Amino acid sequence: MTKQPKPSRIVMHPAARRSELVDAAQALFFERGYEATTINAIMERAGVSKGGLYHHFASKEEILEALALRLAEQSLERLGDVFDEPGLDGLARLNRFFARARQLKIEDAPQLRAAFDVLFKPESIVLYHRINDAIMPVVTPVLARIIAQGRAEGLFDVPDPEATAALVLQISAGSRELMARAMSAGEGPEAEAVWDAFEDRLRFYGIAVDRILGIADGSVAYVEPGFVRALMTARRS
Amino acid sequence: MTKQPKPSRIVMHPAARRSELVDAAQALFFERGYEATTINAIMERAGVSKGGLYHHFASKEEILEALALRLAEQSLERLGDVFDEPGLDGLARLNRFFARARQLKIEDAPQLRAAFDVLFKPESIVLYHRINDAIMPVVTPVLARIIAQGRAEGLFDVPDPEATAALVLQISAGSRELMARAMSAGEGPEAEAVWDAFEDRLRFYGIAVDRILGIADGSVAYVEPGFVRALMTARRS
Repeated sequence: MTKQPKPSRIVMHPAARRSELVDAAQALFFERGYEATTINAIMERAGVSKGGLYHHFASKEEILEALALRLAEQSLERLGDVFDEPGLDGLARLNRFFARARQLKIEDAPQLRAAFDVLFKPESIVLYHRINDAIMPVVTPVLARIIAQGRAEGLFDVPDPEATAALVLQISAGSRELMARAMSAGEGPEAEAVWDAFEDRLRFYGIAVDRILGIADGSVAYVEPGFVRALMTARRS
Repeated sequence: MTKQPKPSRIVMHPAARRSELVDAAQALFFERGYEATTINAIMERAGVSKGGLYHHFASKEEILEALALRLAEQSLERLGDVFDEPGLDGLARLNRFFARARQLKIEDAPQLRAAFDVLFKPESIVLYHRINDAIMPVVTPVLARIIAQGRAEGLFDVPDPEATAALVLQISAGSRELMARAMSAGEGPEAEAVWDAFEDRLRFYGIAVDRILGIADGSVAYVEPGFVRALMTARRS
C-alpha cells in the first residue's frame, strides 16, 4: 500500500482562504453596511487577489450568502445542547430553546453593538433579510423537531410541525422594527417607554405562539421581565 | 374683504408634477426593478428636468416611499366598503376583508403580472419590504378596528387589537417566499404541487389567525379552495 502524502499547505489553502474572505466580508458588512462594502475592500482586507476572490465567489451576493449560512450554523451549534439534553418534554425543551436564544443575545450584545447598529438601519434591509432567509432553513427543521416531540407527547395541538416552526420563527423576525426603534431611542425616560413597548410586544408574541401550539396563554416563556433592558444596557457597556 | 385670487395653473402644477413623477417611477420599478431604475430614467419618463425632480424628491428612496404610500392608500380605498358596511359582526367583517383582498388580487393579477414578476425576484427585496413597510401603518389601524369590534362583541379574545392586527398582517406578508416559488414554477404537474403547497400554507395561516383571535379553527376564511390556481392562471391570461 502506498503511503498517502500528507495534505500539503497548498491543498489546505482554498478552504482557509475562503473562510478568510468571509471573515473580511463580515467585518466590513458589520462596520459599513452591505451596500457600502465593495468587492475591492473585501479583497484588500483579506489580503487576497482579485483572481483569488473570484476563484471562490462569483459576486458580493455569494459572499453574503456564505456568511449568512455560516452565521446560521454558528447559532445552531451554540443552541445544540438544547436539542440533545435528555429528560425534557417538548414544552420544556421549547422554553429552554427560547431562554438560550435570549441568553446568547445578551452575551453577544456588547461585541455585536457595531454590527447591530448597522444591521438595524433602514439601508441594511437586504443584509438583514438575507441573513434571516439563510437562518430560516437551517433552524426551522430543528425547531420543528422540538414541536413534533411535543405533539407526539400530546402537549401541542398543531397540524404541521414544520409549518408551525416556520411561522414561529417568522413571528420572531417581525421584531426587527421594534428592535431598530429601541436601538435608536438613546437613554432616559423616553427610551424606557420604547423598551417597555418592545417587551410588551414580545410578551404578546409569546401568547401568539402559545395559541398557535394549542396550549394555555403564558405556557411559553418567550420573554422575561427586564430582557429588553438587559439587552439594551449590555450593548452600551 | 379682499377677493381671494383663483389658484393659478402654476400653483396647481407641483402636485400634478409630483404625481407624474411617482407614475413614471412606478412604471419603471415594476418593469425593471427598483435597483435597476435610475433617477435619470425617471426624469426622462416623466418629462421632468433634474431641477423639477429634486424640487419634489431628494432621492430615489423618497420617490419609492411616496409610491409605497400611494399604493397603501389605494388598497385601503378599494377595501373601504368592508369597513363601512352595516350589519356585519367582527368575524363576518374580517372574513369580508380577507375575501375582498383575495378578489382584488385575482382581478389585478393580469395587469400586475409584470410588476409581480419583478416584485417577487430576490433582487427586489428592498422594493418588496419598502412597499410592505409603507402599507402596514396604513392598514393596521383599520384592521385593528375590525378586531376591536369583534372583541367588544365578545367574539375575539385578544389582549391588544392593534398588536393583533399587526401580527395578522405580518403573517400574511410571510407568504412572499411561497408566492415567489409559485410564480417561478411554470406550468404542469410540478407547478400544481407547488400551488397546492402554497394553498396548504395559507390554510395553516388561517388557523393561526383563528387561534390568535381565540376562535375555533376554521372560523376565519383566510383562503378558498382553488385560490392559488385562480391567481396563477389569471396572471397568464
